Amino acid sequence: MSAHSGPSFSTRPVLRVNLKTVKQNYNNLQGLVGKKTKVAASVKADAYGLGAARIGRTLYGAGCRTFFVATAGEGKIVREAVGENATIYVLNGPAPRDLTLFFGNQLKPVINSILQAYAWAEATENVKRPPFSAIHIDTGMNRLGFSDEEFEKLVTNKKLFERLKVDHVMSHLACAPDNKSAYNKEQLQKFRKQSSRLPVLPLSIANTAGIYLGDAYHFQMVRPGIGLYGGMATDNIGQEVSEPVASLMAPVLQIRDLQPGDKLGYNSTFVAQKNLSVAIVGAGYADGIPVNWSSTEKGPIGHATLQKKRVPILGRVSMDLTALDVTYLKKKPRIGDWAELLGDNLESDAKAAQTINYELLTNIGSRVRREYV
Amino acid sequence: MSAHSGPSFSTRPVLRVNLKTVKQNYNNLQGLVGKKTKVAASVKADAYGLGAARIGRTLYGAGCRTFFVATAGEGKIVREAVGENATIYVLNGPAPRDLTLFFGNQLKPVINSILQAYAWAEATENVKRPPFSAIHIDTGMNRLGFSDEEFEKLVTNKKLFERLKVDHVMSHLACAPDNKSAYNKEQLQKFRKQSSRLPVLPLSIANTAGIYLGDAYHFQMVRPGIGLYGGMATDNIGQEVSEPVASLMAPVLQIRDLQPGDKLGYNSTFVAQKNLSVAIVGAGYADGIPVNWSSTEKGPIGHATLQKKRVPILGRVSMDLTALDVTYLKKKPRIGDWAELLGDNLESDAKAAQTINYELLTNIGSRVRREYV
Repeated sequence: MSAHSGPSFSTRPVLRVNLKTVKQNYNNLQGLVGKKTKVAASVKADAYGLGAARIGRTLYGAGCRTFFVATAGEGKIVREAVGENATIYVLNGPAPRDLTLFFGNQLKPVINSILQAYAWAEATENVKRPPFSAIHIDTGMNRLGFSDEEFEKLVTNKKLFERLKVDHVMSHLACAPDNKSAYNKEQLQKFRKQSSRLPVLPLSIANTAGIYLGDAYHFQMVRPGIGLYGGMATDNIGQEVSEPVASLMAPVLQIRDLQPGDKLGYNSTFVAQKNLSVAIVGAGYADGIPVNWSSTEKGPIGHATLQKKRVPILGRVSMDLTALDVTYLKKKPRIGDWAELLGDNLESDAKAAQTINYELLTNIGSRVRREYV
Repeated sequence: MSAHSGPSFSTRPVLRVNLKTVKQNYNNLQGLVGKKTKVAASVKADAYGLGAARIGRTLYGAGCRTFFVATAGEGKIVREAVGENATIYVLNGPAPRDLTLFFGNQLKPVINSILQAYAWAEATENVKRPPFSAIHIDTGMNRLGFSDEEFEKLVTNKKLFERLKVDHVMSHLACAPDNKSAYNKEQLQKFRKQSSRLPVLPLSIANTAGIYLGDAYHFQMVRPGIGLYGGMATDNIGQEVSEPVASLMAPVLQIRDLQPGDKLGYNSTFVAQKNLSVAIVGAGYADGIPVNWSSTEKGPIGHATLQKKRVPILGRVSMDLTALDVTYLKKKPRIGDWAELLGDNLESDAKAAQTINYELLTNIGSRVRREYV
């Protein structure tokens, strides 16, 4: 589009995902737990926003053979991506309207309660080769999983247990990011005690943060998610072996020169105090740029990266657009230059938005084109 | 799945969109502006998360013939939904990699700057019947749109202006929600002054909030978005004619009984002080439930609706799950009952999450099944 407009671009934002680094993160975590422990992958929520199909295939290529999703619909997508030789567990368990998805895609439900156990046993009664299942024991998260009372009903009902064809027993840690929390050990002990009342089966309790709590938490399998996708999982990020894999990029659509007194954006929340150069980029909160990154009277909150420099967001983040202060860049940005809105600074970026790195990833909108490198 | 589990359900959350109410909201806004003014529709960001194709078709059925999107990719989706007899403007303007989308789907770019004007004129030079375009004059938002300086270049270059085949002239209000803001009149006056320097063409400046500023802001066209989708747009919501159209529903997956001292969710941020009944529902921040709705030491922040009662969220909102305090409901919820996580209380819900109703809608995740009634 001529010398006027600089590089070629679309006005659509792009999420660049580095699959090589995803693979490397997987290998690093496998190295950490050693060969005795399998590394499964949590690819729920569209692999934390990065795209479950491509991420699933990449991890399969790295040797991963067990995947965890939240719903049966997600399981179907991953099954189509990784083929028949992988195990897929559905964390939220079975539900009546999902049964055809479970049977049609050989998805294994995680059984979280005695009601889910009864229901799955009944649903599979006349099915010739029903999928195996996992048992989720609650050890203190009090979210999903068998409570003590319900677990008693399971261990004392051998017929029911057999019909579930259980091939894995799991739990979930509440406070794993804090390796000083006594609650981790409490949960571990309870998991050992409860699981010992079942036949000997592969066990798992560790998410990414749980891996860093040490060998005692690894058992036969670990189930990292965020650590595969380059997000930090613990309060001691210096120890972590993951590298960032994703960049949310937005094209510069227009450069504006502001004079003192000029107002910018909705509610005119930003008023220029001096001459400023502003780049309007094509991504907003519909794409996952938090409204909470809007600048306040006290100053900027969120930042982007342009020409390898951090540049502050000015005014209110809009639905499709964000304004960046590019006054102090060496070169005036050109139309079509790319600004990085999310990337290497996921943790501090999340803090600025008063949220967590996980939510920044899962909020990346469907309008954003996923580009795999 | 038997008497144990109650009603039929999937573990996947659902967004129920009432298309009849969307139509009614359109008609109400049309009634407000009168027959002299066309009501266009902003269907960008997938019609604010509700689904651009179905919303587009519904509004077309209500008589809408002009649609605004942010990117050319969005324009293609709307074109396929509404057919050839509608006008579709692309707000973020033309870009080199989007040209085939513009030409292939007869999308009209909104020209926001002199660089976009040059680029579009050049790109259409050898095209037989290029799409018409709109001119966006910045009148004080300082986001996209012709600055004063650039506008001079446009009005004094008749050849360029002719080549753009302009059929609409628009601007955008920064402070429309506040009908006491003097900035609205400033922008209106500037819009009148600048547009008068161009040939006589249909004009528009009002989004939903702008409509409520009165006749002077209506011109030949208004461009509501949030008002079609049941979100309130102004600081005086009593005056607004829109009704809620969307409900984000999540199924109850498990009921837990907590005893004093029991901890719930990540970081054990919630500790039960007494016996509590908790429903775990199948939707989390990946589906658009804000992490900021998590309860704090001081008490609950976010709420859901179950059995027509507001129930508080307990502990940290997880990626796929949220815990609700159902202790005080008359009937114990059954597995598969539906809780409403977003719906009639969009404005207070947004406040609780320290954000705006728009972001709550656009953050609704792709895992959520859209159900149209």
